[in-house]
Amino acid sequence: MAKHWAEPVTTALRADGLRVSEIDPSATPGFTGDKQLGKQLLSERGAVLSDLQERLFADGRTGGKRSVLLVLQGMDTAGKGGIVRHVIGSVDPQGVDHASFGVPTEEEKQHDFLWRIHKRLPAHGQIGVFDRSHYEDVLVVRVHNLVPQAEWEQRYDLINTFEREVADAGTTIVKVAMFVSLDEQKRRLRERLERPDKHWKFNPSDITERGYWPEYQKAYQAILERTNTDYAPWYVVPADSKWYARLAVTELLIDALNRLELDWPTADFDVDEQLRRLDES
Amino acid sequence: MAKHWAEPVTTALRADGLRVSEIDPSATPGFTGDKQLGKQLLSERGAVLSDLQERLFADGRTGGKRSVLLVLQGMDTAGKGGIVRHVIGSVDPQGVDHASFGVPTEEEKQHDFLWRIHKRLPAHGQIGVFDRSHYEDVLVVRVHNLVPQAEWEQRYDLINTFEREVADAGTTIVKVAMFVSLDEQKRRLRERLERPDKHWKFNPSDITERGYWPEYQKAYQAILERTNTDYAPWYVVPADSKWYARLAVTELLIDALNRLELDWPTADFDVDEQLRRLDES
Repeated sequence: MAKHWAEPVTTALRADGLRVSEIDPSATPGFTGDKQLGKQLLSERGAVLSDLQERLFADGRTGGKRSVLLVLQGMDTAGKGGIVRHVIGSVDPQGVDHASFGVPTEEEKQHDFLWRIHKRLPAHGQIGVFDRSHYEDVLVVRVHNLVPQAEWEQRYDLINTFEREVADAGTTIVKVAMFVSLDEQKRRLRERLERPDKHWKFNPSDITERGYWPEYQKAYQAILERTNTDYAPWYVVPADSKWYARLAVTELLIDALNRLELDWPTADFDVDEQLRRLDES
Repeated sequence: MAKHWAEPVTTALRADGLRVSEIDPSATPGFTGDKQLGKQLLSERGAVLSDLQERLFADGRTGGKRSVLLVLQGMDTAGKGGIVRHVIGSVDPQGVDHASFGVPTEEEKQHDFLWRIHKRLPAHGQIGVFDRSHYEDVLVVRVHNLVPQAEWEQRYDLINTFEREVADAGTTIVKVAMFVSLDEQKRRLRERLERPDKHWKFNPSDITERGYWPEYQKAYQAILERTNTDYAPWYVVPADSKWYARLAVTELLIDALNRLELDWPTADFDVDEQLRRLDES
């Protein structure tokens, strides 16, 4: 178990049986320290993550078929972007494949909802990051009835089948649902409005969506109940404290990489012979 | 001009009229400080780069059509990977599109040499990074006669035409040729052989290629003479000092972004109206 955690992060945040209505977005489950310690630990643990990521990359370069996929979901301002910058930002960009999924393009609309997702799955040795994902197709799509219910109802099973295949092919899937409170979201949106350097992050529809909060809670509940599997588990991350969310996701990724038990690849050449060749070159 | 530089980095490293045989890989052109100061400056200047990158990203999100493309070339061990980790690693992964170009795949071989390059050009608002590039098609390909001379001879003009189009479409191209000395390369290869955690980075062909050093020098000379244009200039970065190469490339990117003169995008909504809506939500 990581230092300063009362229980493994995977236990503290696992979504099993959780009611979305009972999540406390200001909580810091499992962590025994305070904000100052949390921030300090983030850079220390980021270095551990970076080392593990290099092993994954090395494994991929030498024929290994493993990869990691971090799926980030959350309401606007929940801090997905901060996870990318401050957690994924601690590892070598060479080993990261980041994909954002927005409103589908015309071409994407001509295919099933998993088509664009498939295309962005991480290659061997890579950490893939999905900023939003196929879950939008049972979140915003469900809340706003963008397709008939009969269609989105099928998607939970389709998603499970898809994720099973991806996991079986060697990808460790880590799904993170970030929960921010309605009040904290208001505070963060106000900051975006009050600071001209943040205006670009604001969209008037962000406020409109606040009116659908209960519907989104229900849609998240359905996800946690119907797509929380052993091979692609959901972790629920309270996100009112940015420092906690970042530390928690760092620990989740460290856990995922540790479970791969990656050693440095062994040489497929004779080291002494190559040292001799090098000396003569 | 950046602090602790005797002249602008773009002047100090510009390839105009340079003879490859006269490059001193251990030099630190333009920089007036030492290693300690250089390392210290790297994190300070990385923060500046990160801020500028966010403006570029914001510009792209709000309809801007600008992007930056960093092309990295250099012999094995020159430190391209270190640039990615330590320079590109200082900016938000969300705004980076990293592409490595290795030996062409079977599919890539069915197309002209620029096909795979085109596909990986950065989107608006992104910093694209090419770890090796279309220049391999006039470097390794030329040195080992992988295609007839009549074919590679044409490529210099094709590359210039291609880069002109890319630049005209809004991409600032920064081409960096990293030069490591034969002795320093030997030292770095030895380290890869002596450290089991570095074995995966070593390939016996790395030593074989050392035998072609003069041919590579000649191929680099041709590149600098024939593809060094105003719209896609080459910068020659001495790379025996890793700290210098990283600082120099950071400064080159800062310069490229500064020249875009990016302000934060202005709001396309009425801020006061949105603040009222937010209060009521």
